[in-house]
Amino acid sequence: MTTCEMACLDRPHEECGVFGIFAPGEAVARITFFGLFALQHRGQESAGIAVTDGVNTHLHKEMGLVTQVFNESNLAPLQGHIAIGHTRYSTADSSRPVSAGPFLLESMVGPIALAHNGNLVNTGEMRRKLFQRGVGLASSCDSEVIIQMLAGAQGDTMLDRIKDMMSSALGAYSLTILTRDALYGVRDPWGFRPLCMGRLNGGWVIASESCALETVGAREITEIAPGEIVMVDRTGARVIQGRSPAKSSLCIFEYIYFARPDSVIDGQLIHEVRQELGRQLAREHPVDADLVMGVPDSATAAAIGYAQEAGIPFGEGLIKNRYIGRTFIQPDDRLRKAGVALKFNPLALGLKGKRLVVVDDSIVRGNTSAPTVELLRRAGAREVHLRISSPPIKHPCFMGVDMATYGELIAHRLSIEEIRAHIGADTLGYLSMEGMIAALNRPLDRYCTACFSGDYPLEQKAGGFLSRESQACGVMEA
Amino acid sequence: MTTCEMACLDRPHEECGVFGIFAPGEAVARITFFGLFALQHRGQESAGIAVTDGVNTHLHKEMGLVTQVFNESNLAPLQGHIAIGHTRYSTADSSRPVSAGPFLLESMVGPIALAHNGNLVNTGEMRRKLFQRGVGLASSCDSEVIIQMLAGAQGDTMLDRIKDMMSSALGAYSLTILTRDALYGVRDPWGFRPLCMGRLNGGWVIASESCALETVGAREITEIAPGEIVMVDRTGARVIQGRSPAKSSLCIFEYIYFARPDSVIDGQLIHEVRQELGRQLAREHPVDADLVMGVPDSATAAAIGYAQEAGIPFGEGLIKNRYIGRTFIQPDDRLRKAGVALKFNPLALGLKGKRLVVVDDSIVRGNTSAPTVELLRRAGAREVHLRISSPPIKHPCFMGVDMATYGELIAHRLSIEEIRAHIGADTLGYLSMEGMIAALNRPLDRYCTACFSGDYPLEQKAGGFLSRESQACGVMEA
Amino acid sequence: MTTCEMACLDRPHEECGVFGIFAPGEAVARITFFGLFALQHRGQESAGIAVTDGVNTHLHKEMGLVTQVFNESNLAPLQGHIAIGHTRYSTADSSRPVSAGPFLLESMVGPIALAHNGNLVNTGEMRRKLFQRGVGLASSCDSEVIIQMLAGAQGDTMLDRIKDMMSSALGAYSLTILTRDALYGVRDPWGFRPLCMGRLNGGWVIASESCALETVGAREITEIAPGEIVMVDRTGARVIQGRSPAKSSLCIFEYIYFARPDSVIDGQLIHEVRQELGRQLAREHPVDADLVMGVPDSATAAAIGYAQEAGIPFGEGLIKNRYIGRTFIQPDDRLRKAGVALKFNPLALGLKGKRLVVVDDSIVRGNTSAPTVELLRRAGAREVHLRISSPPIKHPCFMGVDMATYGELIAHRLSIEEIRAHIGADTLGYLSMEGMIAALNRPLDRYCTACFSGDYPLEQKAGGFLSRESQACGVMEA
Amino acid sequence: MTTCEMACLDRPHEECGVFGIFAPGEAVARITFFGLFALQHRGQESAGIAVTDGVNTHLHKEMGLVTQVFNESNLAPLQGHIAIGHTRYSTADSSRPVSAGPFLLESMVGPIALAHNGNLVNTGEMRRKLFQRGVGLASSCDSEVIIQMLAGAQGDTMLDRIKDMMSSALGAYSLTILTRDALYGVRDPWGFRPLCMGRLNGGWVIASESCALETVGAREITEIAPGEIVMVDRTGARVIQGRSPAKSSLCIFEYIYFARPDSVIDGQLIHEVRQELGRQLAREHPVDADLVMGVPDSATAAAIGYAQEAGIPFGEGLIKNRYIGRTFIQPDDRLRKAGVALKFNPLALGLKGKRLVVVDDSIVRGNTSAPTVELLRRAGAREVHLRISSPPIKHPCFMGVDMATYGELIAHRLSIEEIRAHIGADTLGYLSMEGMIAALNRPLDRYCTACFSGDYPLEQKAGGFLSRESQACGVMEA
Repeated sequence: MTTCEMACLDRPHEECGVFGIFAPGEAVARITFFGLFALQHRGQESAGIAVTDGVNTHLHKEMGLVTQVFNESNLAPLQGHIAIGHTRYSTADSSRPVSAGPFLLESMVGPIALAHNGNLVNTGEMRRKLFQRGVGLASSCDSEVIIQMLAGAQGDTMLDRIKDMMSSALGAYSLTILTRDALYGVRDPWGFRPLCMGRLNGGWVIASESCALETVGAREITEIAPGEIVMVDRTGARVIQGRSPAKSSLCIFEYIYFARPDSVIDGQLIHEVRQELGRQLAREHPVDADLVMGVPDSATAAAIGYAQEAGIPFGEGLIKNRYIGRTFIQPDDRLRKAGVALKFNPLALGLKGKRLVVVDDSIVRGNTSAPTVELLRRAGAREVHLRISSPPIKHPCFMGVDMATYGELIAHRLSIEEIRAHIGADTLGYLSMEGMIAALNRPLDRYCTACFSGDYPLEQKAGGFLSRESQACGVMEA
Repeated sequence: MTTCEMACLDRPHEECGVFGIFAPGEAVARITFFGLFALQHRGQESAGIAVTDGVNTHLHKEMGLVTQVFNESNLAPLQGHIAIGHTRYSTADSSRPVSAGPFLLESMVGPIALAHNGNLVNTGEMRRKLFQRGVGLASSCDSEVIIQMLAGAQGDTMLDRIKDMMSSALGAYSLTILTRDALYGVRDPWGFRPLCMGRLNGGWVIASESCALETVGAREITEIAPGEIVMVDRTGARVIQGRSPAKSSLCIFEYIYFARPDSVIDGQLIHEVRQELGRQLAREHPVDADLVMGVPDSATAAAIGYAQEAGIPFGEGLIKNRYIGRTFIQPDDRLRKAGVALKFNPLALGLKGKRLVVVDDSIVRGNTSAPTVELLRRAGAREVHLRISSPPIKHPCFMGVDMATYGELIAHRLSIEEIRAHIGADTLGYLSMEGMIAALNRPLDRYCTACFSGDYPLEQKAGGFLSRESQACGVMEA
Repeated sequence: MTTCEMACLDRPHEECGVFGIFAPGEAVARITFFGLFALQHRGQESAGIAVTDGVNTHLHKEMGLVTQVFNESNLAPLQGHIAIGHTRYSTADSSRPVSAGPFLLESMVGPIALAHNGNLVNTGEMRRKLFQRGVGLASSCDSEVIIQMLAGAQGDTMLDRIKDMMSSALGAYSLTILTRDALYGVRDPWGFRPLCMGRLNGGWVIASESCALETVGAREITEIAPGEIVMVDRTGARVIQGRSPAKSSLCIFEYIYFARPDSVIDGQLIHEVRQELGRQLAREHPVDADLVMGVPDSATAAAIGYAQEAGIPFGEGLIKNRYIGRTFIQPDDRLRKAGVALKFNPLALGLKGKRLVVVDDSIVRGNTSAPTVELLRRAGAREVHLRISSPPIKHPCFMGVDMATYGELIAHRLSIEEIRAHIGADTLGYLSMEGMIAALNRPLDRYCTACFSGDYPLEQKAGGFLSRESQACGVMEA
Repeated sequence: MTTCEMACLDRPHEECGVFGIFAPGEAVARITFFGLFALQHRGQESAGIAVTDGVNTHLHKEMGLVTQVFNESNLAPLQGHIAIGHTRYSTADSSRPVSAGPFLLESMVGPIALAHNGNLVNTGEMRRKLFQRGVGLASSCDSEVIIQMLAGAQGDTMLDRIKDMMSSALGAYSLTILTRDALYGVRDPWGFRPLCMGRLNGGWVIASESCALETVGAREITEIAPGEIVMVDRTGARVIQGRSPAKSSLCIFEYIYFARPDSVIDGQLIHEVRQELGRQLAREHPVDADLVMGVPDSATAAAIGYAQEAGIPFGEGLIKNRYIGRTFIQPDDRLRKAGVALKFNPLALGLKGKRLVVVDDSIVRGNTSAPTVELLRRAGAREVHLRISSPPIKHPCFMGVDMATYGELIAHRLSIEEIRAHIGADTLGYLSMEGMIAALNRPLDRYCTACFSGDYPLEQKAGGFLSRESQACGVMEA
């Protein structure tokens, strides 16, 4: 069954959000619920919480939004003082109950639960190793690979085992791990995905983004550095260098689109960075216009920045239906032609005769930009100048972002002028790599910018490029 | 069972959205689905569609969002060329399957289906009349009262029957009505609620707001005037004055909060009016500040207007979780104190040391303003100047808006200075009645402003003030 | 959507079971639940309970089995001291939420709830009267017709109103009615359907069958006579003759198939009657055989009676899957040919070479008898002698039994010898009318035997034969 | 949440039913559905089907009855020519989604799916071995242990791997296994649980009981012998001795209660055996009486046998509600005292003054016998002579039957006379071991009779007696 998210846009998709808490005396599952709710933007396919009281370990996970998956009655048995949680994004064709997180296994060292954000590049190799060790795998998830690696890892302590796992896993992994007596946060040596921690009363919380820590009232929030392991148990929290940091490769798309505006990553507030990207964009691609607007909702900050820099009034021009939700109802052809499927309505009276600067954060396939421009023109806009607050995306991502294949990426196939013509904008300006880096105010080599440059921080291992299908080797849950 | 919408704010609540279509050859139920989706903001409790092909009439309605209620399999049997649809809002304690719309009855003149937005003030009297006629009522809904009035109305034609009903119904009613061979749109003589119509290929569509007509690709959109009946059948569409217009009483809150910004009501684009309300607010309550921000999402337009007029930069200061949804999970006391339940996170880095103008559209009970101000202060704001783009709400609404009782309305109990102190803002400014009217650029007597002024356009009939409970006379569906 | 009950047999179908209780201090909704559970055989489509505490009246009803519809959480709000309940059977094509019982309406005399077993023959006329009074009807159910008749009936008291309703309703109706302060049981003047009452501690219970009263622990169980109204309130229980008894017309199929074997109707234990029908059958249609078996489960008692009278051992020959349930999965053609859809498996080893007497209680369409005989033959039976413990069904029922149309009734179209040949039995014997009456040990004119004789106790009113579709006048809930 | 199956009786509970099919050109998943439906009595907790077309392997499993779990839409993607299916019984406290079958893993030799009926006695040892190999386990199911053993087994072919697994697994296992190109049926060397196979057109089917093979129209049905592996692929079916047969230990309770009466196990029709157990019981414990009745439904065959042998008429005395289903509704104390919870109603009129022989198949805890006897006495029975068609159960089962612990077994704690007194029967007679064996007409040492004798066929390995809880090591899915 094919599904269609009515409000799905031409955006890359993040894979997951993770959360963890060690806090004796607190309602850890409940706090995890609110933490996951704040991370909902990182994954809407499934949600789950694992909790332990040191004796019993319970897990509840299901397909659906955090608010759909949990209710008081399934939250009630999740008693304990350590919990981890997971929200998962997944493309429609691979969404299966067996892939929902967290994963929970019993092993020779007791129960292990794991929540994972990221993607390994040597999954094929890892799976083969596990198969050779005689492990069968129930899903095609990297998360299951990592947890089975932990279950069979070398080392006397879980810390040693995590280090052992880190010695062979290549790629993106920001993890929270629960054992009977400790909580761990682990960030890969490249630091592809964010991970941060904070204090909560006498306990500790770990999350993909600081917005989730703020939401649950945490203090003293700091970021976990690449290669670090944070271990929290009854004796407190320790930070251990699990593996030497590799070349820093923080995903630059966290700034452009993924992360919530109120999160701080690498010391910078996402919202501020986005405004600055907009200002830089205005410097690089100025244009004479009457109104600056953003494509809702993600490009608003960049549009405000553009407007400030350009001295052109900022305003709203497109209204997005607030009630985002999946629907199985498709418009028929006539409805489609009539524009029924559009996620936006134009604020026509305010656009009539106006010269518009329309700021968007990225173009992936390019299939929603043309209808949006057309919509604005029909609403009376005199000129439509499209400005993109990031460079052209020319390369797919292999680190856990569901972006597109080479063939689907419009900027891989077409020149900027061809894209402009395809979209029907009067002018089109992409932010330059230099401008983007300037806005970030950090050296370029701090980030993974592979989707723009093709410079992948990790050489792809044999098998690493295997499609999801071949990884799955035909194991699928209907 | 009590429920708590995580993102529920201190806002009045609209009761319903209605839609109707007469369009041979079109997928009328599917189009109604998309129309209802665009009206989702007017009611999230239940959704339903009735459709007829002239021989059979089918109805599907359920509790839930439009996207939850309908799927291809329950949409498939809804075949025909006439359809009406309904989305219903309802307070938690009265939400029951028996109240979901549309209502569908068989009567001496064949099937009648009805979708209703509004509230009668003489419900008690109407119910008594129906009881005396020997009609039993399955719900406490005004909609059922109106449809049973139609079922027993005087008149040879449905048009006559609708007129007969209009002669006794007092209050707000914007209706779409379906019979075996025609679609009707009916707006009460006071014009409390909006209702508009448009052409769709060879057919016609009617909706509460123009945004729904735009969404389905309609053209030649016009508003149905107070007291008018629109009748659409095989011979085309006719507009009939069902009853002389009474004193115009369009609900002014449609402009302030209810309607979608991209709708046009009484010839004015809601978004434009809201910007102008913000500009007027800036003129009435200027203040020296660094940043103007709106309480998301509804106050954004007014905040932009305020910023433009005041010459202070507009920016975002609070991030709202995009994933609005009902949850049954409540924070416990400690979480609540830690601020877990807050719907917003502040963009702290950007607020530090700033003097803020915070624009909101209204204050009803006043229970979310204080935590919001507190949140901004903790995030580092130096000053917080709260500006409300409407006058103080001092009176409850009896026309279908779930606002509050006298005792709950903060502006009924407290002076503005007392409210300011309660909220903890540095200054507080409400837009004046005069300023509001000036922004609307129409004479004051065009609107119902009873919630501000206490001047109710309709004398309350005996029984009209009966509480929902007493109306229900103990008939409740668990 | 078409559904197929895997275990559906060639049987007539009863329409409903009703229950009522007046018992201050008892958990009346819970008791009603158990009463309905015992009446599940009379209706598996929907279940519902209405309850009042004298101030508030609550209703919960849903599609599904009693055990599926109710749980502790929806039972909890059903507080009070008076309750009625309903289980409804309904053919697949008319099963709709709007038809589920009980019905609950508010009326000029307060709330009225009604549960109904039976069928009116003058429904068309009644509906027209209601329409003319200006009542719209939400369903095509007789139950809604009766409750709206009550809502508009003449009379100062509910008792008078019930009598007024009885003066115009023609047909089968065994009712339980709830008002704010009383419980009523009503049986039509012909006594088509059973209805009985009993004491429960200080209170009273009413039910379609005595098995439900036994299940909840009632004592002093008596039957409500044709035309009687039982009224129970704080002052106790009174029996009033609501209307003079008409020609006694108890549905004889209650004895043959409908009622549970442990119920007593008209003073006779169903199980005993069925055994006696079997004995009489043995006298009328003796045959030399090795084993007597019944078609499970309903014909077991008759088979035991046959075996006793014939002096042939009784045994089991067919095993029925105990896990009866609806399934949407249909066998494909090959599976069907392979016999997959059969509800029975033969006990082959025990049948090999045997001469069998196979007792069944009735043949309606005749479509399951032939495969059953074939199954037994393939299992090795040497001879199969089919014996039916009732006469040939030659006429449809208009009193609430979903039997078949004239064209579908095999005994209407074919002679007994032709039926035998069609079925493939060695011999076929139906019980005679005389034999059936002898077994019942009451005069023939006590019963409605219209399905055998065509002597309908009620002249069909114009409109009374209208099909369900035309009654519905196109009003259908998808 | 605790659940209560309204019709649950004092019976041991079987753990699972398995099914398998290899049949190119057939609708294998659909056939598996019907096979599982016929095996529903072996497990009502969850149901699942895995299917492969040689390229893709799909699995669908869920909690619920077979008819609840599958519908046309989730059956549709289950395309292929090999399928296996599983129905699982599980006590309420351990029922979790992670334990539902079949299990499906990808391994070094491709996908493996497994359905399992039985219980290992060396689970603890096996789990430790797997842990030491570095395998984490997601559930406490033996099935997962076996499939991970297969995933890491020695051997070039799956056949070799199965043999390797059989060399270390101790206990009961009747398995169906699916790989990309073959179907396997495996029965443990002791033959604890039944397993049989048959031809279906050009293909093959395997099932726990022959009734499932009959249901899908299979021919040439034979039993798989202890220690045998059946392998079916494109080249046909082969039977391989996977491991030498051990001391034959077929569970005798399959004859007494578990298996469906229409199944043949070890060459004997279950129904015939049960009749013979009844005859033998009559010989051992004759009594002067008027009527022989069985406790429905499972003791009917034994009661018929008793009646035949004793020359006393067989009849029905208790009616069981046909609508078995789980309910969450519990009777309150008063209802309980009133007998509301009883699963049976007595056929009172037929029991009055009668001396009854009541045949039941077993007594486990003894908690339903006393109320049943009391019920019959209240219904007027003069004498109640309880006869049990099996010996006293004095020992728990460790082979996959959920029976009870030593402390719960009434015959472990009390003498027969004490049991009689506890139950309140006039006399009580259990079938002797010798009588039971005589009825089976096979040597005693062919069966596992441990629950009667305490002679366990397998020495319990260290860890084998670990409770389910300790096995789970705290890993539980809420």
